[in-house]
Amino acid sequence: MNDQHIASAYDRDLESLQALILKMGGLVEAAIHDASNALEARDVEKAEAVRRGDKAVDALEDQVNDEGARVIALRAPVSKDLRMILAIIRFAGALERVGDYAKNMAKRVGTLSELRPVEGTEVMIRRMSREVEGMLRDLLDAFVRRDAELARDVIHRDGDVDQMYNALFREILTYMMEDPRHITACMHLHFIAKNTERMGDLVTNMAEQVVYLVTGERPDDERVKKDQTPYMTAPE
Amino acid sequence: MNDQHIASAYDRDLESLQALILKMGGLVEAAIHDASNALEARDVEKAEAVRRGDKAVDALEDQVNDEGARVIALRAPVSKDLRMILAIIRFAGALERVGDYAKNMAKRVGTLSELRPVEGTEVMIRRMSREVEGMLRDLLDAFVRRDAELARDVIHRDGDVDQMYNALFREILTYMMEDPRHITACMHLHFIAKNTERMGDLVTNMAEQVVYLVTGERPDDERVKKDQTPYMTAPE
Repeated sequence: MNDQHIASAYDRDLESLQALILKMGGLVEAAIHDASNALEARDVEKAEAVRRGDKAVDALEDQVNDEGARVIALRAPVSKDLRMILAIIRFAGALERVGDYAKNMAKRVGTLSELRPVEGTEVMIRRMSREVEGMLRDLLDAFVRRDAELARDVIHRDGDVDQMYNALFREILTYMMEDPRHITACMHLHFIAKNTERMGDLVTNMAEQVVYLVTGERPDDERVKKDQTPYMTAPE
Repeated sequence: MNDQHIASAYDRDLESLQALILKMGGLVEAAIHDASNALEARDVEKAEAVRRGDKAVDALEDQVNDEGARVIALRAPVSKDLRMILAIIRFAGALERVGDYAKNMAKRVGTLSELRPVEGTEVMIRRMSREVEGMLRDLLDAFVRRDAELARDVIHRDGDVDQMYNALFREILTYMMEDPRHITACMHLHFIAKNTERMGDLVTNMAEQVVYLVTGERPDDERVKKDQTPYMTAPE
């Protein structure tokens, strides 16, 4: 009887932690979406709203950390339950960083709105950020439904994001060399592209943790690092 | 008697966790040092050693995570003790990322060795990475000695790193516009500079957690974000 009482109190605690993470994930997903739209439309006001909104994400991370520590201290969970709570604390850290990257994208909208647009590059950045947004949405679903297959699918899709980034890097080099007046805009766009690629990596790390939580096995690390740009020079 | 027995077992666990973090921190500090030297000397072999060495850092992070979870499950620590263990787990995550940035610096040595050097920029990058290396060393000291003052000093010094990065960003834009043949090298050097600035941010976050662990108070968030580059365009 008492055991059951404790178990269900723990379940409630876990549910409330999970609700916090989903709320955080939803805000971050919206931040990516809005930052990307603000960039496309050169909408400085919307970009400003994304920047302000990041405070709520940061506050939620603190809340997950405090609440996670409280549940551990109160319920003394072990093995699988403890792994779940530690994973949730790590998710909060990762989501906070994804939110930071979205905020950074928003920060550059004002600067870019004063520079000549670099059409092709911006279309590709938009595709990248849509893909990452979708990965994050599916990752949150996979986490709630404890769906290892969906989490594996998210991991798989990160390869596409990496490939888009590699192509972008090369393209940006070319644009800059062709026309030095594009250099400043290209530097900012490259930042945005690289940060988007990093968001994809963070979501992928979370997806790997979901696979581990559900199956007890770490997913194959055959996902080779697909960022090839450290080795790239300008095309001849 | 039994209480004391438990307490000292916990102390031993904590010490062993702390030893793991110090080992990890030492490896990461060396990785920054070696990557920076390899870059300066265009020493591709040393760079390769840094890349290989990152595996040990990753393995230590897993060890800290597993060991941290084990200690929590076994000792059910509360309040201050629990906060300490959760902080150590977070430190491991942060150090892993700093190590990744050092590895990324090393990855670019080969590419840069085939390009014309960009003298002034590289000197400044070296200064930045020396500063971050010193911050990390002092952060580890501050953590071991529970020295909030030293941790605050580390936080303070991050402002210098940010300022060096801001100056570098502007300089790199200028170099690229002056001579498009510098563009590829400048893109890679900029990556390195930005990653070094990020290492400084990560070390600073850890220093803030040390202040919190020691004093129970979060350090003033008057540390304004000093990365001004999202708003920068090329000088006229």
